[in-house]
Amino acid sequence: MDTQLIKTLLEAVSSGSTDVASALEQLASLPYATESLSYATLDTGRKARTGFAEVVYGAGKTPTQCIGIAETLLGHQPAVLFTRLSDASSAALVDAFPVHRSWTDGKTLLIGEIPEQVFSGKVYVVTAGTSDLPVADECVATLLAHGADVGQVTDVGVAGIQRILSKTEMLRTARVVIVVAGMDGALPSVVGGLVGCPVIAVPTSVGYGAAFSGVAPLLTMLNACASGITVVNIDNGFGGAMAALRILRGPDAQAE
Amino acid sequence: MDTQLIKTLLEAVSSGSTDVASALEQLASLPYATESLSYATLDTGRKARTGFAEVVYGAGKTPTQCIGIAETLLGHQPAVLFTRLSDASSAALVDAFPVHRSWTDGKTLLIGEIPEQVFSGKVYVVTAGTSDLPVADECVATLLAHGADVGQVTDVGVAGIQRILSKTEMLRTARVVIVVAGMDGALPSVVGGLVGCPVIAVPTSVGYGAAFSGVAPLLTMLNACASGITVVNIDNGFGGAMAALRILRGPDAQAE
Amino acid sequence: MDTQLIKTLLEAVSSGSTDVASALEQLASLPYATESLSYATLDTGRKARTGFAEVVYGAGKTPTQCIGIAETLLGHQPAVLFTRLSDASSAALVDAFPVHRSWTDGKTLLIGEIPEQVFSGKVYVVTAGTSDLPVADECVATLLAHGADVGQVTDVGVAGIQRILSKTEMLRTARVVIVVAGMDGALPSVVGGLVGCPVIAVPTSVGYGAAFSGVAPLLTMLNACASGITVVNIDNGFGGAMAALRILRGPDAQAE
Amino acid sequence: MDTQLIKTLLEAVSSGSTDVASALEQLASLPYATESLSYATLDTGRKARTGFAEVVYGAGKTPTQCIGIAETLLGHQPAVLFTRLSDASSAALVDAFPVHRSWTDGKTLLIGEIPEQVFSGKVYVVTAGTSDLPVADECVATLLAHGADVGQVTDVGVAGIQRILSKTEMLRTARVVIVVAGMDGALPSVVGGLVGCPVIAVPTSVGYGAAFSGVAPLLTMLNACASGITVVNIDNGFGGAMAALRILRGPDAQAE
Amino acid sequence: MDTQLIKTLLEAVSSGSTDVASALEQLASLPYATESLSYATLDTGRKARTGFAEVVYGAGKTPTQCIGIAETLLGHQPAVLFTRLSDASSAALVDAFPVHRSWTDGKTLLIGEIPEQVFSGKVYVVTAGTSDLPVADECVATLLAHGADVGQVTDVGVAGIQRILSKTEMLRTARVVIVVAGMDGALPSVVGGLVGCPVIAVPTSVGYGAAFSGVAPLLTMLNACASGITVVNIDNGFGGAMAALRILRGPDAQAE
Amino acid sequence: MDTQLIKTLLEAVSSGSTDVASALEQLASLPYATESLSYATLDTGRKARTGFAEVVYGAGKTPTQCIGIAETLLGHQPAVLFTRLSDASSAALVDAFPVHRSWTDGKTLLIGEIPEQVFSGKVYVVTAGTSDLPVADECVATLLAHGADVGQVTDVGVAGIQRILSKTEMLRTARVVIVVAGMDGALPSVVGGLVGCPVIAVPTSVGYGAAFSGVAPLLTMLNACASGITVVNIDNGFGGAMAALRILRGPDAQAE
Amino acid sequence: MDTQLIKTLLEAVSSGSTDVASALEQLASLPYATESLSYATLDTGRKARTGFAEVVYGAGKTPTQCIGIAETLLGHQPAVLFTRLSDASSAALVDAFPVHRSWTDGKTLLIGEIPEQVFSGKVYVVTAGTSDLPVADECVATLLAHGADVGQVTDVGVAGIQRILSKTEMLRTARVVIVVAGMDGALPSVVGGLVGCPVIAVPTSVGYGAAFSGVAPLLTMLNACASGITVVNIDNGFGGAMAALRILRGPDAQAE
Amino acid sequence: MDTQLIKTLLEAVSSGSTDVASALEQLASLPYATESLSYATLDTGRKARTGFAEVVYGAGKTPTQCIGIAETLLGHQPAVLFTRLSDASSAALVDAFPVHRSWTDGKTLLIGEIPEQVFSGKVYVVTAGTSDLPVADECVATLLAHGADVGQVTDVGVAGIQRILSKTEMLRTARVVIVVAGMDGALPSVVGGLVGCPVIAVPTSVGYGAAFSGVAPLLTMLNACASGITVVNIDNGFGGAMAALRILRGPDAQAE
Repeated sequence: MDTQLIKTLLEAVSSGSTDVASALEQLASLPYATESLSYATLDTGRKARTGFAEVVYGAGKTPTQCIGIAETLLGHQPAVLFTRLSDASSAALVDAFPVHRSWTDGKTLLIGEIPEQVFSGKVYVVTAGTSDLPVADECVATLLAHGADVGQVTDVGVAGIQRILSKTEMLRTARVVIVVAGMDGALPSVVGGLVGCPVIAVPTSVGYGAAFSGVAPLLTMLNACASGITVVNIDNGFGGAMAALRILRGPDAQAE
Repeated sequence: MDTQLIKTLLEAVSSGSTDVASALEQLASLPYATESLSYATLDTGRKARTGFAEVVYGAGKTPTQCIGIAETLLGHQPAVLFTRLSDASSAALVDAFPVHRSWTDGKTLLIGEIPEQVFSGKVYVVTAGTSDLPVADECVATLLAHGADVGQVTDVGVAGIQRILSKTEMLRTARVVIVVAGMDGALPSVVGGLVGCPVIAVPTSVGYGAAFSGVAPLLTMLNACASGITVVNIDNGFGGAMAALRILRGPDAQAE
Repeated sequence: MDTQLIKTLLEAVSSGSTDVASALEQLASLPYATESLSYATLDTGRKARTGFAEVVYGAGKTPTQCIGIAETLLGHQPAVLFTRLSDASSAALVDAFPVHRSWTDGKTLLIGEIPEQVFSGKVYVVTAGTSDLPVADECVATLLAHGADVGQVTDVGVAGIQRILSKTEMLRTARVVIVVAGMDGALPSVVGGLVGCPVIAVPTSVGYGAAFSGVAPLLTMLNACASGITVVNIDNGFGGAMAALRILRGPDAQAE
Repeated sequence: MDTQLIKTLLEAVSSGSTDVASALEQLASLPYATESLSYATLDTGRKARTGFAEVVYGAGKTPTQCIGIAETLLGHQPAVLFTRLSDASSAALVDAFPVHRSWTDGKTLLIGEIPEQVFSGKVYVVTAGTSDLPVADECVATLLAHGADVGQVTDVGVAGIQRILSKTEMLRTARVVIVVAGMDGALPSVVGGLVGCPVIAVPTSVGYGAAFSGVAPLLTMLNACASGITVVNIDNGFGGAMAALRILRGPDAQAE
Repeated sequence: MDTQLIKTLLEAVSSGSTDVASALEQLASLPYATESLSYATLDTGRKARTGFAEVVYGAGKTPTQCIGIAETLLGHQPAVLFTRLSDASSAALVDAFPVHRSWTDGKTLLIGEIPEQVFSGKVYVVTAGTSDLPVADECVATLLAHGADVGQVTDVGVAGIQRILSKTEMLRTARVVIVVAGMDGALPSVVGGLVGCPVIAVPTSVGYGAAFSGVAPLLTMLNACASGITVVNIDNGFGGAMAALRILRGPDAQAE
Repeated sequence: MDTQLIKTLLEAVSSGSTDVASALEQLASLPYATESLSYATLDTGRKARTGFAEVVYGAGKTPTQCIGIAETLLGHQPAVLFTRLSDASSAALVDAFPVHRSWTDGKTLLIGEIPEQVFSGKVYVVTAGTSDLPVADECVATLLAHGADVGQVTDVGVAGIQRILSKTEMLRTARVVIVVAGMDGALPSVVGGLVGCPVIAVPTSVGYGAAFSGVAPLLTMLNACASGITVVNIDNGFGGAMAALRILRGPDAQAE
Repeated sequence: MDTQLIKTLLEAVSSGSTDVASALEQLASLPYATESLSYATLDTGRKARTGFAEVVYGAGKTPTQCIGIAETLLGHQPAVLFTRLSDASSAALVDAFPVHRSWTDGKTLLIGEIPEQVFSGKVYVVTAGTSDLPVADECVATLLAHGADVGQVTDVGVAGIQRILSKTEMLRTARVVIVVAGMDGALPSVVGGLVGCPVIAVPTSVGYGAAFSGVAPLLTMLNACASGITVVNIDNGFGGAMAALRILRGPDAQAE
Repeated sequence: MDTQLIKTLLEAVSSGSTDVASALEQLASLPYATESLSYATLDTGRKARTGFAEVVYGAGKTPTQCIGIAETLLGHQPAVLFTRLSDASSAALVDAFPVHRSWTDGKTLLIGEIPEQVFSGKVYVVTAGTSDLPVADECVATLLAHGADVGQVTDVGVAGIQRILSKTEMLRTARVVIVVAGMDGALPSVVGGLVGCPVIAVPTSVGYGAAFSGVAPLLTMLNACASGITVVNIDNGFGGAMAALRILRGPDAQAE
């Protein structure tokens, strides 16, 4: 809790410059403010607290719910990013809102104004195989939607090791490298040995049999012999992007 | 591969300022140089490539092997960090080298000169329960050994939610927050909602029964509903620290 | 076995006030009475034994079977609750019986008279995200069908921790809190630290990848660091409600 | 958050009857008060919030840490319960504190004054086999330590079904039944069909091979065909007891 | 190998009563005889060796393959049983062969003459719930097709324990009891305590969530606390029936 | 329930030939009789119900408990079989009782008189490798203790397929074959194709790595391509023997 | 890296016979050459390095991508093999390229010229059951496409052990045996005991219940008691073939 | 079965050149000959069938059993290799037999005469880390014991990718490469892209947490993106070596 804010408020009440009703109201509008809908408690204060607007996980939400959420959030922020939309929800949003941008056949959708590039530092999204591209697309979309500077390297799996080696010089200019890989998930181990910057590994469900829908690359990445690799959930391109944005953004506040 | 370096070398050979034998030797001493021991190919060039000296995983290595590795590495770098040492290996290293620092009963050991603080940006290591401390210690040791500025917050699990809330203001000054938790592993989800900086989650094997030696908090963290949380291996305090150091360090090279 | 009842019966037989045939018949109609259909042995005595009418698990039952079961049960009790109905079974029941109430698109269906509120004590059904609503609906339906007093709190996951904190005062008036959550399943740990009343956790299969169709929140809840949280099966909103009803109801009999 | 308390406090500040420094201090001593030790943030306000004193999970804590925690907590509450103590920690606590009670060879230890029976309503702890007794003991100890009225039924597994049937009349007087079972974990399903009161199932790691250290009975219990059975973690006798105590205790506060 | 047969054959060759070509032919027609098709090596000698005609696992076989297999086998035995047929294969077999009998919507199909009852000893097939019936049907079909005397008990799960208890007297006349159950899979443990004859447990994939498509009842049954329960694969009604038939049949040969 | 017995009893009460107290006493001594100890409800009536005396699972029972159980059971039956005894419990039983027989270094112990051979029909216990012998020993011990006629075949794994083939003639005289195998667990599939009698597969935890302590052979056996193979728990030699004894024994009662 | 080639190149640069620009170009066209497409970095140098042209994994690739890849690769090699094609991609390739050969309903497709038989040594592909044929087909297709001499043995599972025994003489002429089996996966253990040549085991997802989509045969094969059996991924007929081709091919280069 | 041999034998019997007793004896000494001990059926004919002498898996065998097996086998072959010996068994064998060679602290032991190098073709055993050496040692021991030409490459994990790249030229002279790796198990994928010869991957249990005792590298290797990699069991250095020997050895017999 923001005790400095509370202290200031108490002093104002003490001095009479703020009355009790107003103080209660201000307490309610602190960074924990919420606006209630019948089916969702939207976290409209999150941007103030964490630096990012709310991103909506579309799976399992009806078109009507998606439109309601979009309308409410657009009252607080210029853009809303939806991921994992059903085709119906995607179409409904496209119909309802004039300004948008779309990735991966509309599963990922940006309603409202696309931000300018607001972060310095290059983020490279590297994929092991062509089949990993949909996950990488979700990742790139999320990064662009938040104003990051993104580069992409495709189909550089370790079975042809020179493919990733030939990109070393380029990757060594990155602020963050996100590595998207299925099957053996070995690529982040190699990339982590080539660069010193943060490497975020995104396992994908590409593969079959003992890949177990992404479990194999997930375990590979958690056990990467290059140190300091971090991992997000299977197929979670969005999560990999958000982790990169946290790195680009820096501390919330200055230490005293 | 560092094609710029190769180009320069080729030009020197072409102009006659470098002869072939010397050029071959220089190629061999590029950032991929190694020094061979009978039982280990040490990666003495890794510091040049990734910014960090080699850290030695002590489990399964004999005291004699550890001492041999330490002697070789100290010829290339001022300090060597060992983790997961057996008691015998730890004692042998303590006997053989005059300058060292020790954590967690000698399991983690720093041979040589402890570096000065070389990174700006505070790293907080947050633990959910007292039983998670050994993993947090490995994490703190690794950070200090590499010159990071470390703070620690202890025993702030979510069952008494005000414990972590009362630290919010402090955590919002962090460059990175590392959250170490076993059992339900729920703490990173809460921390990730409170701060916008990178949150690295370290699951621990603390717990019993359906905690399955850390599987439960690992899965919780991979599914954290706060976005952008990244995860390392179970009990991998070292890995969490290395991930934080990658964030502190920045890009390897400037983009053109 | 109800030896007091048997003793009384034996005494009646001994005294001649009951004959053997009648005694055998009465033994058969003790709380273990059943009525046989060709495809189901209905437990029509269960209400007498456990306080609740039989609830029918609709998955895998044909429309004809559902109607047969409904007809038989309505001969013994005013209402029958069906869950997990196929669309065909649901439609058939709606056609066949004039009085009913429907939830979650007819998957949960109440045939017969809805009971009045018969239990004191508020039950709150709390959901972490909008996508958890179908499971919460099954839970609410079951509670209402049995005469409980139900309140609902929606979309208060821990990534925006103030959302659940702002409900603390309200939840502290509950007799039971049922918490429905997927993904990281962290919400029950927090709720369990805020209230002293029973907290029943219902994991949902919401999420993807390493959520493993509900395994991740299930494990989180079994390892909740707030003590005394209990757990039911994945997506088992019905089971959570029945557990709450057991709490509302109290002992079957008075101790001597 | 307790907004009524905050409102009162603000009014006191406004009226001048409380100064700012004092108000800040009072905010800090609200139900979220904590007392800091170097290795643990004790939740001394938890009893006020949840109705129970803190119970300390002893595994992985040193004797010195245990004694420190005990001393601090005894400054706030008459008794402290430790579970899963090492032999060394148990012996150290027995030496350091004159008043105590011990279960299961000292693994569970009560420091301070044992409370009188404070709850009405009988809790029965039922075990399937003799080998399940240590888990049942932890359960009984926790219940007695908090002032519950406990009965115990032993070795009534379903392979000799008449053993549990002969206890039906007795169990039907219970407020809560806790069923502790390993191997096939089938007992709670049967008990749940015999009584209408809450049934809490505690799986144990008794068994071998495909029992997988308690996974088999855990899954059995989560899938119990008797409705409304709830489950706690494997071997978690403490958790089963705490869940029962939540039921005995009732709501934290009266609804308006 | 049948060395007695070989010895007799050798003696016949030695005495000249059998020539080499004939001897080779007879060796080939020993119980290991096979008839080759391009896509299947049919084990037409199996009936001689094991007492049962070949039963064909229909999943993954095309209609054409099924018809080819049926034609070949009917040259060696009066009937062929197919299980797990696709709808197309089932229809093709029904069209191609005038005599047949069908169970579970044609998935199980008997081509040729249904045998008379050839085994003494009653086999009871007991199901826990109505939803387990398809698996029980496959079991009953296989038993009838091989000439067993079958009885069926339906919907007697342990949550209403009196349902199975009321069948005790009947089950105690069985030569074999096959118990088919999903969800908690607890019924075989109870039945195994009521009867002394062989109890074969068939787990089904009925249930949801932590039933994990039959894993939960499978583990329950493998850990049944009633001793001597045996288990077959999930949903394997056919396998349960074949195991019962092995019991009914007795030894292949008399010991000397 | 034995309604014929109850009917007779009721008629006796009705006629006055039995008084109420006596009738109650007789009801209590029906096949569901139990004798209570403080730590165990012994099922002394089980032999009457299922045909076998109680066998005691020794793991987790103290020497004192074992001796108490042995004394009580020997009041009801001539012999008691203990399995999985600790060394201490085994030694205590050997000291306390003059007549016994011991297998597998005392882990399996028979207290009292060894029965004569009471069952006709040979049971063969077949092991794949020498390392599987301890499990086979538990199996043989249990069979002998109950009066079965046992033969043993050792070290006939499928990698040298002629080893088992050379035993075919002998195995075809068996009433039951129990196959004990670890590693790939392939032996029961082959045996099941050679004989038509019941084949009970016992997976063992012999093997390493991906044998996962017996999971690999367990799954192999559940999926055996020879039909009608049944399976018991990993390392459960006792269970395999009890299953064979159920087959030898036949129905509990004659059908009308 | 091919240091001999580099040395030669350096000498040419030194002597002036090659200029720097040309040397850089030649370095780029070493065996690590790649040709970039927007969505794939094709490894056109792989044939030179490993002896085989690139085989394209079709799953998840669009028809357009497949055609683009085929066009590019056919510029470097006479034929391209696609596996796991969608129907749409298969049809598109069939339309676009006049010369091709097709297996398993077009899922596996060979574009370009089929090679002559280039390897000596027979490879036998052995299947346990008819249902395993699609996986065996992928295996055979890959072998033929690369010029191997292939034989096939079908439906020789171990439940009729004489079926595989009758093939022993033939299999003992093989250079490599590939064994494809689902369900219990026991066949490779038997084959490995019959022949001394390499045995490659391919588990299939044929089976149900506890076969867990191929996990059961996978584990069986990894634990095969015949020594020296190797295993590839579930359903990976392609992988089994490639492993055989590596054996047929021999070393890449002569040792000095 | 070797029908040609049988035919020849039959002809000899027919012609009178062999009598029946002798013919039976010769049948018994065909490649399926065995010599029986009380605890083991030794496969003394295996060398004739598969080309290798029996290797004894020492785990779970007593010193006395080991010595008995060694004595018997040495009557048939010049040397016996034991693996996974207990210290006691190892010491007993060392005492009992004058000629032997020992690896990995006596766990692997060769009794009798070490063979000369009998196979052409180099086998390289490559390890990712120093901690993988014990498994590699078992592998090397088995290869040398059978007369292979072995080379070893140590500590070349992919985090320092140049370490393995610098060995490329050497590895390309290999007939077989065996890659031993724990943790992420990524090394075989890279090696498989560098060489065209057979690559056998041996996962090790080196690592912790989510390495799950070798499951992580096992899955990685089964999903290796370099095609044609085969895998053996976790820690199975022996198995990897036997697979290589099968490759070195070639077909058992010439095809007609």
